[in-house]
Amino acid sequence: MDHIKRIHHVAIVVENIDEALCFWEDALGLKVQEKRDIPEQQVSIAFLPLGGSELELVKPTSEDSGVAKYLESRGPGMHHLCLEVDDLDEIMERLQQKGVQLINDEPLMSPDGTRFAFVHPKSAQGVLVELYEVPPSK
Amino acid sequence: MDHIKRIHHVAIVVENIDEALCFWEDALGLKVQEKRDIPEQQVSIAFLPLGGSELELVKPTSEDSGVAKYLESRGPGMHHLCLEVDDLDEIMERLQQKGVQLINDEPLMSPDGTRFAFVHPKSAQGVLVELYEVPPSK
Repeated sequence: MDHIKRIHHVAIVVENIDEALCFWEDALGLKVQEKRDIPEQQVSIAFLPLGGSELELVKPTSEDSGVAKYLESRGPGMHHLCLEVDDLDEIMERLQQKGVQLINDEPLMSPDGTRFAFVHPKSAQGVLVELYEVPPSK
Repeated sequence: MDHIKRIHHVAIVVENIDEALCFWEDALGLKVQEKRDIPEQQVSIAFLPLGGSELELVKPTSEDSGVAKYLESRGPGMHHLCLEVDDLDEIMERLQQKGVQLINDEPLMSPDGTRFAFVHPKSAQGVLVELYEVPPSK
């Protein structure tokens, strides 16, 4: 049952990515690897590698997305914790057996083939936990 | 200026460590490496290795500590993000030159020799960032 591989990323919701980079890049010394708009999620993201993990700065691009509502109610800060797993189906089945509340009962898939699911913060001490199964070629 | 080595840990403030372990250990499959009371910080902590990083579950043991007040006002959730650095003095100097607000202007030291400092969330998009310089023997 040792199938959680690493922290894949920590996502930080921000009001303005360029302003955020004044701290994370210019002052702290991390480097942006990529910036990307994800229209289907109504966000812009900057990816900053950090050891074997990465930080993701996430800015909502509409006012009614989940991230926008989070930002409005809680302010900027850490939004979710993503863990890379080796077998998402197995872990989701085990979590469901243990009564853990998932946000999506079936795995979702991103365009690059990464399969993912979210654990509801109610089941994880207030932490929105994302589980990532990265395809072998990545 | 490539001196941020990795995510050392993500700290999660919880109301009850044993209840939290029902999710993080029993359901998700992480393993507690150590539990420790830190009376000088008025917390109990459980450490769970996770790839090259770890999760720290933090429970306040008094009602008037900073962590207790955080828990009361924000509820359980991610509390701080700790990054391992190779030269804390150099990074603190650079952050101060850039106008980043630090919580402690001089490095602190834990009993095991780890030197550390905190960046104020005001300077880091709401994230309480801890910087760790781990002694070579650790």
